[in-house]
Amino acid sequence: VETVLESKNQKTIIGPDRMFVIIGERINPTGRKKLAEELLAGNLDRVRADAEEQTKAGAAMLDVNAGVLGTDEAALLVELVKTVQDVTDLPLSIDSSVAEALEAALPVYEGKALVNSVTAEEQRMERVLPLVKKHQAAVIGMLMDENGISMDPEVRLGIARRIVERASDHGIASEDVVIDPLVMALATDPKSAEVTLETIRLVRRELGRNLTCGASNVSFGMPARRGFNAAFLPMTMYAGLTSAITNPLIPEVRMAIQASDALLGRDPYGVQWLKARREEEQST
Amino acid sequence: VETVLESKNQKTIIGPDRMFVIIGERINPTGRKKLAEELLAGNLDRVRADAEEQTKAGAAMLDVNAGVLGTDEAALLVELVKTVQDVTDLPLSIDSSVAEALEAALPVYEGKALVNSVTAEEQRMERVLPLVKKHQAAVIGMLMDENGISMDPEVRLGIARRIVERASDHGIASEDVVIDPLVMALATDPKSAEVTLETIRLVRRELGRNLTCGASNVSFGMPARRGFNAAFLPMTMYAGLTSAITNPLIPEVRMAIQASDALLGRDPYGVQWLKARREEEQST
Repeated sequence: VETVLESKNQKTIIGPDRMFVIIGERINPTGRKKLAEELLAGNLDRVRADAEEQTKAGAAMLDVNAGVLGTDEAALLVELVKTVQDVTDLPLSIDSSVAEALEAALPVYEGKALVNSVTAEEQRMERVLPLVKKHQAAVIGMLMDENGISMDPEVRLGIARRIVERASDHGIASEDVVIDPLVMALATDPKSAEVTLETIRLVRRELGRNLTCGASNVSFGMPARRGFNAAFLPMTMYAGLTSAITNPLIPEVRMAIQASDALLGRDPYGVQWLKARREEEQST
Repeated sequence: VETVLESKNQKTIIGPDRMFVIIGERINPTGRKKLAEELLAGNLDRVRADAEEQTKAGAAMLDVNAGVLGTDEAALLVELVKTVQDVTDLPLSIDSSVAEALEAALPVYEGKALVNSVTAEEQRMERVLPLVKKHQAAVIGMLMDENGISMDPEVRLGIARRIVERASDHGIASEDVVIDPLVMALATDPKSAEVTLETIRLVRRELGRNLTCGASNVSFGMPARRGFNAAFLPMTMYAGLTSAITNPLIPEVRMAIQASDALLGRDPYGVQWLKARREEEQST
Protein backbone atom coordinates (compact mmCIF):
# COMPACT_ATOMS: atom_id res chain seq x y z
CA VAL A 1 0.00 0.00 0.00
CA GLU A 2 1.32 3.41 -0.95
CA THR A 3 0.24 6.79 0.38
CA VAL A 4 0.81 9.63 -2.07
CA LEU A 5 1.25 13.20 -0.81
CA GLU A 6 1.66 16.16 -3.12
CA SER A 7 2.79 19.75 -3.21
CA LYS A 8 2.21 21.91 -6.27
CA ASN A 9 5.31 20.52 -7.98
CA GLN A 10 6.34 17.39 -6.16
CA LYS A 11 5.14 13.99 -4.96
CA THR A 12 6.23 12.03 -1.91
CA ILE A 13 5.17 8.41 -1.64
CA ILE A 14 5.12 6.53 1.66
CA GLY A 15 5.29 2.76 1.25
CA PRO A 16 6.89 -0.37 2.72
CA ASP A 17 9.11 -1.02 -0.30
CA ARG A 18 10.29 2.56 -0.62
CA MET A 19 12.95 4.56 1.14
CA PHE A 20 11.77 5.64 4.58
CA VAL A 21 10.05 9.05 4.55
CA ILE A 22 11.43 11.63 6.97
CA ILE A 23 8.81 14.24 7.87
CA GLY A 24 10.82 17.17 9.19
CA GLU A 25 9.62 18.08 12.69
CA ARG A 26 11.30 21.44 13.21
CA ILE A 27 8.54 23.87 12.25
CA ASN A 28 6.78 23.50 15.57
CA PRO A 29 6.99 25.98 18.46
CA THR A 30 6.36 23.28 21.10
CA GLY A 31 9.45 23.28 23.30
CA ARG A 32 11.20 25.87 21.09
CA LYS A 33 10.91 29.07 23.09
CA LYS A 34 12.78 31.27 20.64
CA LEU A 35 10.68 30.17 17.71
CA ALA A 36 7.50 30.73 19.73
CA GLU A 37 8.59 34.28 20.58
CA GLU A 38 9.43 35.06 16.97
CA LEU A 39 6.08 33.70 15.79
CA LEU A 40 4.31 35.89 18.37
CA ALA A 41 6.23 38.86 16.95
CA GLY A 42 5.27 37.92 13.39
CA ASN A 43 8.84 37.06 12.41
CA LEU A 44 8.93 34.06 10.06
CA ASP A 45 12.65 34.07 9.19
CA ARG A 46 13.42 31.02 11.27
CA VAL A 47 10.49 29.14 9.75
CA ARG A 48 11.89 29.80 6.27
CA ALA A 49 15.38 28.73 7.35
CA ASP A 50 14.00 25.57 9.00
CA ALA A 51 12.11 24.70 5.85
CA GLU A 52 15.18 25.16 3.66
CA GLU A 53 17.57 23.32 5.95
CA GLN A 54 15.32 20.32 6.48
CA THR A 55 14.68 20.07 2.73
CA LYS A 56 18.42 20.10 2.11
CA ALA A 57 19.05 17.52 4.85
CA GLY A 58 16.85 14.95 3.17
CA ALA A 59 13.34 15.38 4.57
CA ALA A 60 10.72 14.13 2.10
CA MET A 61 7.91 16.11 3.78
CA LEU A 62 7.69 18.89 6.35
CA ASP A 63 5.39 19.06 9.37
CA VAL A 64 3.95 22.51 10.07
CA ASN A 65 2.57 23.28 13.52
CA ALA A 66 1.48 26.69 14.85
CA GLY A 67 0.58 25.86 18.44
CA VAL A 68 1.69 29.00 20.27
CA LEU A 69 -0.22 30.10 23.35
CA GLY A 70 -1.62 33.57 23.01
CA THR A 71 -2.14 33.61 19.24
CA ASP A 72 -4.96 32.83 16.89
CA GLU A 73 -3.67 29.39 15.90
CA ALA A 74 -5.84 29.22 12.78
CA ALA A 75 -4.51 32.52 11.39
CA LEU A 76 -0.91 31.61 12.24
CA LEU A 77 -1.18 28.15 10.70
CA VAL A 78 -2.49 29.71 7.47
CA GLU A 79 0.48 32.07 7.51
CA LEU A 80 2.98 29.26 8.13
CA VAL A 81 1.57 26.99 5.41
CA LYS A 82 1.74 29.86 2.90
CA THR A 83 5.28 30.72 3.94
CA VAL A 84 6.61 27.17 3.92
CA GLN A 85 5.12 26.21 0.56
CA ASP A 86 6.81 29.29 -0.89
CA VAL A 87 10.30 28.11 0.12
CA THR A 88 10.08 24.33 -0.41
CA ASP A 89 8.61 21.95 -2.94
CA LEU A 90 8.11 19.23 -0.33
CA PRO A 91 4.55 18.15 0.50
CA LEU A 92 3.39 19.29 3.94
CA SER A 93 1.90 17.66 6.99
CA ILE A 94 -0.54 20.19 8.49
CA ASP A 95 -0.41 19.70 12.22
CA SER A 96 -2.91 20.93 14.78
CA SER A 97 -5.08 19.61 17.57
CA VAL A 98 -7.46 22.48 16.85
CA ALA A 99 -9.94 21.54 14.12
CA GLU A 100 -10.59 25.20 13.26
CA ALA A 101 -6.91 25.64 12.45
CA LEU A 102 -6.95 22.63 10.10
CA GLU A 103 -10.15 23.98 8.55
CA ALA A 104 -8.51 27.34 7.89
CA ALA A 105 -5.16 26.03 6.65
CA LEU A 106 -6.25 23.23 4.30
CA PRO A 107 -7.80 25.58 1.68
CA VAL A 108 -4.56 27.56 1.29
CA TYR A 109 -2.42 24.45 0.78
CA GLU A 110 -1.71 23.73 -2.88
CA GLY A 111 -1.54 19.95 -3.13
CA LYS A 112 -2.52 16.82 -1.26
CA ALA A 113 -1.68 17.39 2.40
CA LEU A 114 -1.21 14.96 5.26
CA VAL A 115 -3.52 16.09 8.07
CA ASN A 116 -1.87 15.58 11.47
CA SER A 117 -4.01 14.24 13.07
CA VAL A 118 -7.23 12.50 14.01
CA THR A 119 -7.77 10.19 17.00
CA ALA A 120 -10.53 7.62 17.53
CA GLU A 121 -12.43 10.04 19.74
CA GLU A 122 -15.95 10.37 18.32
CA GLN A 123 -16.05 14.14 18.25
CA ARG A 124 -12.61 14.43 16.74
CA MET A 125 -13.32 11.89 13.99
CA GLU A 126 -16.62 13.52 13.04
CA ARG A 127 -14.99 16.94 12.95
CA VAL A 128 -11.69 16.15 11.17
CA LEU A 129 -12.53 13.36 8.71
CA PRO A 130 -15.02 15.49 6.72
CA LEU A 131 -12.26 18.11 6.32
CA VAL A 132 -9.82 15.46 5.10
CA LYS A 133 -12.38 14.23 2.58
CA LYS A 134 -13.36 17.71 1.43
CA HIS A 135 -9.75 18.65 0.67
CA GLN A 136 -8.84 15.21 -0.70
CA ALA A 137 -6.04 14.98 1.83
CA ALA A 138 -4.53 12.02 3.69
CA VAL A 139 -4.68 11.80 7.49
CA ILE A 140 -2.64 10.50 10.41
CA GLY A 141 -4.69 8.35 12.79
CA MET A 142 -3.33 8.43 16.34
CA LEU A 143 -4.12 5.29 18.33
CA MET A 144 -6.01 6.77 21.26
CA ASP A 145 -9.69 7.27 22.06
CA GLU A 146 -11.97 8.47 24.86
CA ASN A 147 -10.28 5.97 27.18
CA GLY A 148 -6.88 7.53 26.56
CA ILE A 149 -3.79 5.56 25.54
CA SER A 150 -3.71 1.80 26.10
CA MET A 151 -0.49 -0.09 26.89
CA ASP A 152 -1.96 -3.18 25.17
CA PRO A 153 -0.87 -3.42 21.49
CA GLU A 154 -4.05 -5.37 20.63
CA VAL A 155 -6.19 -2.53 21.96
CA ARG A 156 -4.19 -0.05 19.88
CA LEU A 157 -4.72 -2.29 16.83
CA GLY A 158 -8.47 -2.26 17.49
CA ILE A 159 -8.39 1.54 17.55
CA ALA A 160 -6.51 1.56 14.22
CA ARG A 161 -9.27 -0.59 12.73
CA ARG A 162 -11.91 1.85 13.98
CA ILE A 163 -10.17 4.86 12.48
CA VAL A 164 -9.66 3.15 9.10
CA GLU A 165 -13.32 2.07 9.04
CA ARG A 166 -14.65 5.47 10.01
CA ALA A 167 -12.44 7.13 7.41
CA SER A 168 -13.89 4.75 4.83
CA ASP A 169 -17.43 5.72 5.94
CA HIS A 170 -16.43 9.28 5.09
CA GLY A 171 -15.19 8.23 1.64
CA ILE A 172 -11.49 8.40 2.44
CA ALA A 173 -9.40 5.69 0.72
CA SER A 174 -7.80 3.26 3.17
CA GLU A 175 -4.30 4.02 1.82
CA ASP A 176 -4.85 7.64 2.81
CA VAL A 177 -4.96 6.75 6.50
CA VAL A 178 -1.45 6.65 7.97
CA ILE A 179 -1.34 5.15 11.45
CA ASP A 180 0.61 6.67 14.36
CA PRO A 181 1.20 3.79 16.84
CA LEU A 182 2.13 6.38 19.52
CA VAL A 183 5.57 6.67 21.06
CA MET A 184 5.69 7.36 24.80
CA ALA A 185 8.72 8.28 26.90
CA LEU A 186 10.64 5.25 28.10
CA ALA A 187 11.49 7.22 31.22
CA THR A 188 7.87 6.97 32.36
CA ASP A 189 7.30 3.29 31.47
CA PRO A 190 10.04 0.73 30.68
CA LYS A 191 7.59 -1.18 28.45
CA SER A 192 6.60 1.75 26.26
CA ALA A 193 9.04 1.09 23.39
CA GLU A 194 8.10 -2.59 23.24
CA VAL A 195 4.39 -1.67 23.12
CA THR A 196 5.05 0.70 20.21
CA LEU A 197 7.14 -1.88 18.32
CA GLU A 198 4.50 -4.59 18.74
CA THR A 199 1.76 -2.17 17.66
CA ILE A 200 3.73 -1.34 14.51
CA ARG A 201 4.14 -5.03 13.74
CA LEU A 202 0.42 -5.75 14.25
CA VAL A 203 -0.78 -2.78 12.18
CA ARG A 204 1.51 -3.77 9.30
CA ARG A 205 0.53 -7.44 9.46
CA GLU A 206 -3.21 -7.11 10.11
CA LEU A 207 -4.09 -3.88 8.33
CA GLY A 208 -1.20 -3.31 5.92
CA ARG A 209 -1.35 0.45 6.58
CA ASN A 210 1.54 2.86 6.40
CA LEU A 211 2.76 4.19 9.72
CA THR A 212 4.43 7.30 11.05
CA CYS A 213 5.28 8.50 14.56
CA GLY A 214 7.05 11.10 16.61
CA ALA A 215 10.02 8.83 17.19
CA SER A 216 12.00 11.24 19.37
CA ASN A 217 9.41 11.07 22.14
CA VAL A 218 10.93 7.77 23.28
CA SER A 219 13.98 9.49 24.78
CA PHE A 220 12.16 12.33 26.53
CA GLY A 221 13.82 13.00 29.89
CA MET A 222 16.93 10.91 29.08
CA PRO A 223 20.52 12.12 28.57
CA ALA A 224 22.21 11.68 25.17
CA ARG A 225 18.88 11.61 23.38
CA ARG A 226 20.42 11.51 19.90
CA GLY A 227 22.16 8.19 20.46
CA PHE A 228 19.04 6.83 22.04
CA ASN A 229 16.80 7.86 19.14
CA ALA A 230 19.36 6.47 16.68
CA ALA A 231 18.90 3.02 18.25
CA PHE A 232 15.09 3.19 18.34
CA LEU A 233 14.62 4.11 14.68
CA PRO A 234 16.21 0.92 13.23
CA MET A 235 13.98 -1.20 15.47
CA THR A 236 10.82 0.64 14.39
CA MET A 237 11.83 0.34 10.73
CA TYR A 238 12.47 -3.38 11.08
CA ALA A 239 9.06 -3.71 12.79
CA GLY A 240 7.41 -1.98 9.81
CA LEU A 241 7.41 1.79 10.32
CA THR A 242 7.40 3.52 6.93
CA SER A 243 7.94 7.15 7.95
CA ALA A 244 8.67 9.26 11.02
CA ILE A 245 8.24 12.84 12.13
CA THR A 246 11.77 13.57 13.23
CA ASN A 247 14.73 15.92 12.82
CA PRO A 248 16.79 15.26 9.66
CA LEU A 249 19.38 17.83 10.80
CA ILE A 250 20.70 15.40 13.44
CA PRO A 251 23.45 13.31 11.81
CA GLU A 252 22.88 10.29 14.09
CA VAL A 253 19.18 10.21 13.16
CA ARG A 254 19.83 10.65 9.46
CA MET A 255 22.50 7.94 9.43
CA ALA A 256 20.36 5.50 11.43
CA ILE A 257 17.56 5.85 8.88
CA GLN A 258 19.84 5.65 5.83
CA ALA A 259 21.65 2.59 7.19
CA SER A 260 18.34 0.92 8.03
CA ASP A 261 17.05 1.51 4.50
CA ALA A 262 20.11 -0.32 3.16
CA LEU A 263 19.84 -3.11 5.76
CA LEU A 264 16.18 -3.69 4.92
CA GLY A 265 16.83 -3.95 1.18
CA ARG A 266 15.32 -0.58 0.23
CA ASP A 267 18.65 0.87 -0.82
CA PRO A 268 20.28 -2.08 -2.61
CA TYR A 269 24.08 -2.13 -2.33
CA GLY A 270 23.87 1.02 -0.19
CA VAL A 271 23.97 3.34 -3.20
CA GLN A 272 22.19 6.15 -1.33
CA TRP A 273 24.28 5.49 1.79
CA LEU A 274 27.46 5.89 -0.24
CA LYS A 275 26.15 9.03 -1.89
CA ALA A 276 25.20 10.63 1.42
CA ARG A 277 28.60 9.86 2.97
CA ARG A 278 30.38 11.30 -0.07
CA GLU A 279 28.33 14.49 0.13
CA GLU A 280 29.13 14.81 3.83
CA GLU A 281 32.81 14.48 3.09
CA GLN A 282 32.68 17.15 0.44
CA SER A 283 30.78 19.56 2.66
CA THR A 284 33.44 19.37 5.42
CA VAL B 1 17.25 -20.28 28.57
CA GLU B 2 20.50 -19.04 30.05
CA THR B 3 24.04 -19.92 29.00
CA VAL B 4 26.56 -19.62 31.83
CA LEU B 5 30.24 -18.98 31.06
CA GLU B 6 32.89 -18.83 33.75
CA SER B 7 36.41 -17.66 34.40
CA LYS B 8 38.20 -18.60 37.61
CA ASN B 9 36.54 -15.74 39.49
CA GLN B 10 33.63 -14.53 37.44
CA LYS B 11 30.44 -15.60 35.69
CA THR B 12 28.82 -14.19 32.59
CA ILE B 13 25.28 -15.24 31.76
CA ILE B 14 23.80 -14.92 28.28
CA GLY B 15 20.01 -14.85 28.25
CA PRO B 16 17.03 -13.13 26.62
CA ASP B 17 15.97 -11.30 29.78
CA ARG B 18 19.46 -10.10 30.66
CA MET B 19 21.58 -7.24 29.48
CA PHE B 20 23.09 -7.99 26.07
CA VAL B 21 26.53 -9.66 26.30
CA ILE B 22 29.34 -7.97 24.39
CA ILE B 23 32.10 -10.43 23.50
CA GLY B 24 35.13 -8.24 22.80
CA GLU B 25 36.48 -9.00 19.32
CA ARG B 26 39.83 -7.23 19.40
CA ILE B 27 42.19 -10.06 20.32
CA ASN B 28 42.26 -11.41 16.79
CA PRO B 29 45.07 -10.85 14.27
CA THR B 30 42.71 -11.18 11.27
CA GLY B 31 42.92 -7.86 9.46
CA ARG B 32 45.18 -6.35 12.17
CA LYS B 33 48.58 -6.37 10.52
CA LYS B 34 50.45 -4.78 13.43
CA LEU B 35 49.05 -7.23 15.94
CA ALA B 36 49.93 -10.14 13.65
CA GLU B 37 53.53 -8.92 13.37
CA GLU B 38 53.85 -8.51 17.12
CA LEU B 39 52.45 -11.99 17.73
CA LEU B 40 54.96 -13.44 15.25
CA ALA B 41 57.70 -11.65 17.21
CA GLY B 42 56.37 -13.02 20.51
CA ASN B 43 55.30 -9.61 21.77
CA LEU B 44 52.04 -9.83 23.76
CA ASP B 45 51.87 -6.25 25.05
CA ARG B 46 49.06 -5.25 22.71
CA VAL B 47 47.09 -8.36 23.66
CA ARG B 48 47.30 -7.39 27.32
CA ALA B 49 46.28 -3.81 26.54
CA ASP B 50 43.37 -5.01 24.36
CA ALA B 51 42.17 -7.28 27.16
CA GLU B 52 42.28 -4.48 29.72
CA GLU B 53 40.68 -1.85 27.52
CA GLN B 54 37.81 -4.07 26.38
CA THR B 55 37.14 -5.14 29.96
CA LYS B 56 37.00 -1.50 31.01
CA ALA B 57 34.76 -0.59 28.08
CA GLY B 58 32.06 -3.00 29.18
CA ALA B 59 32.75 -6.31 27.42
CA ALA B 60 31.27 -9.23 29.41
CA MET B 61 33.51 -11.79 27.66
CA LEU B 62 36.57 -11.67 25.42
CA ASP B 63 37.15 -13.59 22.21
CA VAL B 64 40.72 -14.90 21.77
CA ASN B 65 41.91 -15.85 18.29
CA ALA B 66 45.49 -16.75 17.27
CA GLY B 67 45.10 -17.21 13.53
CA VAL B 68 48.41 -15.86 12.21
CA LEU B 69 49.89 -17.37 9.08
CA GLY B 70 53.36 -18.79 9.66
CA THR B 71 52.97 -19.74 13.32
CA ASP B 72 51.97 -22.83 15.23
CA GLU B 73 48.42 -21.70 15.95
CA ALA B 74 47.94 -24.22 18.76
CA ALA B 75 51.00 -23.03 20.68
CA LEU B 76 50.13 -19.37 20.15
CA LEU B 77 46.51 -19.85 21.22
CA VAL B 78 47.70 -21.52 24.44
CA GLU B 79 49.98 -18.55 25.05
CA LEU B 80 47.20 -16.02 24.39
CA VAL B 81 44.68 -17.76 26.62
CA LYS B 82 47.19 -17.86 29.47
CA THR B 83 48.12 -14.22 28.98
CA VAL B 84 44.55 -12.94 28.71
CA GLN B 85 43.23 -14.83 31.73
CA ASP B 86 46.06 -13.29 33.73
CA VAL B 87 44.92 -9.72 33.00
CA THR B 88 41.13 -10.05 33.03
CA ASP B 89 38.49 -11.84 35.07
CA LEU B 90 36.12 -12.05 32.11
CA PRO B 91 35.23 -15.49 30.76
CA LEU B 92 36.80 -16.24 27.37
CA SER B 93 35.58 -17.35 23.99
CA ILE B 94 38.31 -19.56 22.51
CA ASP B 95 38.28 -18.99 18.80
CA SER B 96 39.86 -21.17 16.13
CA SER B 97 38.95 -23.01 12.97
CA VAL B 98 41.78 -25.43 13.74
CA ALA B 99 40.58 -28.24 16.01
CA GLU B 100 44.12 -28.93 17.24
CA ALA B 101 44.38 -25.37 18.52
CA LEU B 102 41.12 -25.73 20.47
CA GLU B 103 42.34 -29.07 21.79
CA ALA B 104 45.56 -27.51 23.04
CA ALA B 105 44.03 -24.33 24.50
CA LEU B 106 41.00 -25.72 26.35
CA PRO B 107 43.04 -27.54 29.05
CA VAL B 108 44.89 -24.34 30.04
CA TYR B 109 41.70 -22.30 30.43
CA GLU B 110 40.51 -22.06 34.01
CA GLY B 111 36.73 -21.97 33.84
CA LYS B 112 33.88 -22.75 31.49
CA ALA B 113 34.84 -21.45 28.05
CA LEU B 114 32.76 -20.68 25.00
CA VAL B 115 34.27 -22.62 22.09
CA ASN B 116 34.13 -20.58 18.87
CA SER B 117 33.05 -22.53 16.87
CA VAL B 118 31.51 -25.63 15.36
CA THR B 119 29.60 -25.84 12.07
CA ALA B 120 27.18 -28.55 10.93
CA GLU B 121 29.89 -30.14 8.80
CA GLU B 122 30.12 -33.81 9.82
CA GLN B 123 33.86 -33.87 10.35
CA ARG B 124 33.89 -30.64 12.28
CA MET B 125 31.04 -31.70 14.59
CA GLU B 126 32.64 -35.06 15.33
CA ARG B 127 35.98 -33.43 16.04
CA VAL B 128 34.91 -30.38 18.07
CA LEU B 129 31.86 -31.54 20.06
CA PRO B 130 33.80 -34.21 22.01
CA LEU B 131 36.29 -31.50 23.04
CA VAL B 132 33.45 -29.26 24.20
CA LYS B 133 32.00 -32.10 26.23
CA LYS B 134 35.34 -33.17 27.68
CA HIS B 135 36.09 -29.67 28.98
CA GLN B 136 32.50 -28.96 29.99
CA ALA B 137 32.49 -25.89 27.81
CA ALA B 138 29.74 -24.21 25.80
CA VAL B 139 29.97 -23.89 22.02
CA ILE B 140 28.98 -21.54 19.22
CA GLY B 141 27.19 -23.33 16.37
CA MET B 142 27.64 -21.54 13.03
CA LEU B 143 24.79 -22.12 10.59
CA MET B 144 26.65 -23.64 7.66
CA ASP B 145 27.33 -27.18 6.51
CA GLU B 146 28.90 -29.10 3.63
CA ASN B 147 26.65 -27.17 1.24
CA GLY B 148 28.04 -23.86 2.43
CA ILE B 149 25.89 -20.93 3.57
CA SER B 150 22.24 -20.82 2.57
CA MET B 151 20.37 -17.58 1.94
CA ASP B 152 17.13 -19.26 3.09
CA PRO B 153 16.43 -18.63 6.81
CA GLU B 154 14.48 -21.91 7.05
CA VAL B 155 17.51 -23.84 5.83
CA ARG B 156 19.67 -22.08 8.41
CA LEU B 157 17.10 -22.98 11.09
CA GLY B 158 17.32 -26.63 10.00
CA ILE B 159 21.09 -26.49 10.41
CA ALA B 160 20.67 -25.03 13.91
CA ARG B 161 18.42 -27.97 14.80
CA ARG B 162 21.04 -30.41 13.56
CA ILE B 163 23.83 -28.82 15.60
CA VAL B 164 21.72 -28.74 18.78
CA GLU B 165 20.71 -32.39 18.28
CA ARG B 166 24.23 -33.57 17.58
CA ALA B 167 25.54 -31.67 20.61
CA SER B 168 22.88 -33.43 22.68
CA ASP B 169 24.07 -36.79 21.28
CA HIS B 170 27.48 -35.88 22.69
CA GLY B 171 26.00 -35.07 26.11
CA ILE B 172 26.16 -31.28 25.77
CA ALA B 173 23.22 -29.47 27.38
CA SER B 174 21.06 -27.60 24.88
CA GLU B 175 21.56 -24.28 26.72
CA ASP B 176 25.30 -24.66 26.10
CA VAL B 177 24.85 -24.35 22.35
CA VAL B 178 24.84 -20.69 21.30
CA ILE B 179 23.76 -20.19 17.69
CA ASP B 180 25.56 -17.90 15.24
CA PRO B 181 22.99 -17.04 12.53
CA LEU B 182 25.83 -15.76 10.28
CA VAL B 183 26.22 -12.17 9.21
CA MET B 184 27.33 -11.60 5.62
CA ALA B 185 28.41 -8.33 4.01
CA LEU B 186 25.50 -6.32 2.69
CA ALA B 187 27.80 -5.07 -0.05
CA THR B 188 27.77 -8.53 -1.63
CA ASP B 189 24.04 -9.25 -1.27
CA PRO B 190 21.33 -6.65 -0.47
CA LYS B 191 19.24 -9.37 1.22
CA SER B 192 21.92 -10.58 3.62
CA ALA B 193 20.87 -8.52 6.64
CA GLU B 194 17.22 -9.52 6.25
CA VAL B 195 18.21 -13.19 6.04
CA THR B 196 20.21 -12.86 9.26
CA LEU B 197 17.37 -11.05 11.06
CA GLU B 198 14.80 -13.64 10.01
CA THR B 199 17.15 -16.47 11.05
CA ILE B 200 17.55 -14.88 14.49
CA ARG B 201 13.78 -14.60 14.85
CA LEU B 202 13.24 -18.23 13.82
CA VAL B 203 15.97 -19.64 16.09
CA ARG B 204 14.58 -17.72 19.08
CA ARG B 205 10.98 -18.72 18.36
CA GLU B 206 11.48 -22.35 17.33
CA LEU B 207 14.51 -23.40 19.37
CA GLY B 208 14.71 -20.80 22.14
CA ARG B 209 18.52 -20.84 21.94
CA ASN B 210 20.81 -17.95 22.75
CA LEU B 211 22.48 -16.32 19.77
CA THR B 212 25.69 -14.48 19.01
CA CYS B 213 27.29 -13.20 15.81
CA GLY B 214 30.07 -11.17 14.30
CA ALA B 215 27.80 -8.19 13.82
CA SER B 216 30.38 -5.94 12.17
CA ASN B 217 30.61 -8.18 9.10
CA VAL B 218 27.43 -6.57 7.78
CA SER B 219 29.23 -3.34 6.87
CA PHE B 220 32.29 -4.90 5.27
CA GLY B 221 33.30 -2.83 2.23
CA MET B 222 31.06 0.12 3.15
CA PRO B 223 32.12 3.63 4.20
CA ALA B 224 31.23 4.90 7.71
CA ARG B 225 31.04 1.37 9.08
CA ARG B 226 30.49 2.50 12.67
CA GLY B 227 27.22 4.25 11.93
CA PHE B 228 26.14 1.32 9.85
CA ASN B 229 26.87 -1.23 12.57
CA ALA B 230 25.16 0.99 15.13
CA ALA B 231 21.92 0.68 13.12
CA PHE B 232 22.20 -3.08 12.59
CA LEU B 233 22.69 -3.99 16.26
CA PRO B 234 19.31 -2.62 17.50
CA MET B 235 17.53 -4.59 14.76
CA THR B 236 19.32 -7.83 15.68
CA MET B 237 18.55 -7.27 19.38
CA TYR B 238 14.88 -6.65 18.66
CA ALA B 239 14.86 -9.82 16.52
CA GLY B 240 16.27 -11.80 19.47
CA LEU B 241 20.07 -11.68 19.42
CA THR B 242 21.39 -12.06 22.98
CA SER B 243 25.11 -11.36 22.48
CA ALA B 244 27.54 -10.27 19.79
CA ILE B 245 31.23 -10.51 19.07
CA THR B 246 32.00 -6.86 18.49
CA ASN B 247 34.20 -3.94 19.52
CA PRO B 248 33.14 -2.30 22.81
CA LEU B 249 35.74 0.45 22.30
CA ILE B 250 33.61 2.05 19.56
CA PRO B 251 31.26 4.55 21.24
CA GLU B 252 28.56 4.22 18.55
CA VAL B 253 28.45 0.44 19.02
CA ARG B 254 28.43 0.65 22.82
CA MET B 255 25.67 3.26 22.82
CA ALA B 256 23.54 1.35 20.30
CA ILE B 257 23.65 -1.73 22.53
CA GLN B 258 23.04 0.15 25.78
CA ALA B 259 20.11 2.08 24.29
CA SER B 260 18.64 -1.12 22.87
CA ASP B 261 18.84 -2.82 26.27
CA ALA B 262 16.79 0.05 27.73
CA LEU B 263 14.34 0.05 24.79
CA LEU B 264 13.75 -3.69 25.13
CA GLY B 265 13.05 -3.49 28.86
CA ARG B 266 16.31 -5.07 30.04
CA ASP B 267 17.53 -1.88 31.63
CA PRO B 268 14.36 -0.50 33.24
CA TYR B 269 14.24 3.30 33.41
CA GLY B 270 17.63 3.38 31.63
CA VAL B 271 19.58 3.15 34.88
CA GLN B 272 22.64 1.66 33.17
CA TRP B 273 22.29 4.08 30.27
CA LEU B 274 22.38 7.01 32.69
CA LYS B 275 25.34 5.55 34.54
CA ALA B 276 27.33 5.03 31.34
CA ARG B 277 26.66 8.57 30.13
CA ARG B 278 27.70 10.00 33.49
CA GLU B 279 30.95 8.03 33.43
CA GLU B 280 31.67 9.27 29.92
CA GLU B 281 31.14 12.84 31.03
CA GLN B 282 33.50 12.43 33.95
CA SER B 283 36.20 10.84 31.82
CA THR B 284 36.23 13.78 29.38
